[in-house]
Amino acid sequence: MSWAEGFIAVDWGTTNRRAYRLAGDGALSDEMEDGLGILSVESGGFPDSVRTIRERLGDLPMLMAGMIGSNRGWVEAPYVPCPAALDELAARLVWAEPGRVAIVPGVSLDRGGEADVMRGEEVQILGALAAGLVGGDALVCHPGTHNKWIRLERGRIAGFRTVMTGELFNLLREHSILADLLDGPAGPSRAFAAGVRHGLDEDDLLAELFSVRARILLGKQPREEACDYTSGLLIGSDLRVGLRGAEAGAGEVVAMGRPELTRLFAAALREAGREAIEIDGEKAFLAGARKLAELVKA
Amino acid sequence: MSWAEGFIAVDWGTTNRRAYRLAGDGALSDEMEDGLGILSVESGGFPDSVRTIRERLGDLPMLMAGMIGSNRGWVEAPYVPCPAALDELAARLVWAEPGRVAIVPGVSLDRGGEADVMRGEEVQILGALAAGLVGGDALVCHPGTHNKWIRLERGRIAGFRTVMTGELFNLLREHSILADLLDGPAGPSRAFAAGVRHGLDEDDLLAELFSVRARILLGKQPREEACDYTSGLLIGSDLRVGLRGAEAGAGEVVAMGRPELTRLFAAALREAGREAIEIDGEKAFLAGARKLAELVKA
Repeated sequence: MSWAEGFIAVDWGTTNRRAYRLAGDGALSDEMEDGLGILSVESGGFPDSVRTIRERLGDLPMLMAGMIGSNRGWVEAPYVPCPAALDELAARLVWAEPGRVAIVPGVSLDRGGEADVMRGEEVQILGALAAGLVGGDALVCHPGTHNKWIRLERGRIAGFRTVMTGELFNLLREHSILADLLDGPAGPSRAFAAGVRHGLDEDDLLAELFSVRARILLGKQPREEACDYTSGLLIGSDLRVGLRGAEAGAGEVVAMGRPELTRLFAAALREAGREAIEIDGEKAFLAGARKLAELVKA
Repeated sequence: MSWAEGFIAVDWGTTNRRAYRLAGDGALSDEMEDGLGILSVESGGFPDSVRTIRERLGDLPMLMAGMIGSNRGWVEAPYVPCPAALDELAARLVWAEPGRVAIVPGVSLDRGGEADVMRGEEVQILGALAAGLVGGDALVCHPGTHNKWIRLERGRIAGFRTVMTGELFNLLREHSILADLLDGPAGPSRAFAAGVRHGLDEDDLLAELFSVRARILLGKQPREEACDYTSGLLIGSDLRVGLRGAEAGAGEVVAMGRPELTRLFAAALREAGREAIEIDGEKAFLAGARKLAELVKA
């Protein structure tokens, strides 16, 4: 059971976990996914919880990233401050089982009034960089429950900002007065583009959200447009935060993450006049895990 | 059982209802409140549901306002479009029981791209106006689940804008990643003022919300400040929408509604350099109900 024979890379989040078996040459040979996120594991229960992964994918060393390294996870892996590269992450791995289970630290931003944290995205972003999928100077948009806008400078994570766009969309969809309007998946339709436009141009998100309902009540907008428009509105507002500042103007823009989300963000970025490269977050995660495993072996 | 002998005024909302017995001379003689909002009443169940109010407060005519007039209520009372005054509301009462139970219509805004609706607040605002508590030209802020900013012009509701600030605060508090930080009631502390300041100055609400959590994780802000700061942040952002436009500069600013909320909004308005008159929404509602009953009698 040595790293040279291969390893299992785990992206262990709050509500889900994904595990991938990578052979010694880096090839993906098997994978699994289940709903056993860290919140479903009791304190002290991680050694047991990890057994089900090994039973399924083999008794190999493991490299874990995501919320598994948070203060609610298995062992806390303290944040590496920006600017951060893959070398620093490798140097600060925390071993949950010596030599067998390494946990990748998250990255923090703590500079003057700015404060932010990430856990998991850093492996994807620095992995994409290591694999040459992204250049060393880029603006990366990583949509998800907590969208991240990450500035890469000279091959390092220089800074980033988290926007709670995905979480708000979920809250609205599950618990708000708009819930019954937000059925179905959002797509990049004409209504979506109109929402993006409004979000980019106007600074009135919480008012415009109510207008969606009012326009439908007053028969001014078809009900079928509500979901796409609202999704566009939220993403447009998100872009206004993410594209702000001088850095946003330079270098390439990348949308990285789950393809159904990067597709929406790339469409919104196009509406804002920016062409984005889309990168599958899973592919980027595996690239990052491979590179970290190499550094462990070295 | 005639209006001259007195009546019962009911503010029947989505999740609660309040009923007040007013004598022939307008004096408040009894009141009740319970959790039987319209969502707890099945279709066709309103005649039964109203019996419990009559049993408690007497067999008197009733005047009802709020969501009871919506398409999920007893009988739908179509919106009166802006500009709207108390006369129009009286002329468009809908009778759920002829001569016995009148339902007050809500007010709508449907002008070009603007669309908005209210049900319940109009009785308070026009009531305060009728009672001389507010001047005929004013900007009224009515905090609640759905905050309303209402422009009064020459004694009429000229326009208004709803901001989902209260609902977002509740969603964050009950279901979000910030939930454990948002315990306790928010108060107008120094942290609250800092949040208001940020909300007034910066257009990054959904990012700043995540920063609250990040600053606490990184030890940059005391956890005890989170609730006040977040409340201030949301209210500051709300004010930026409400105080926008030329109208906002002229006339008095009024904060009307539940005293624990008008107190917070008045504090935030002070931070924005505006002194607000606070008016208890219940008092204003009773003033409006009395005036409408007079118009019914006439």
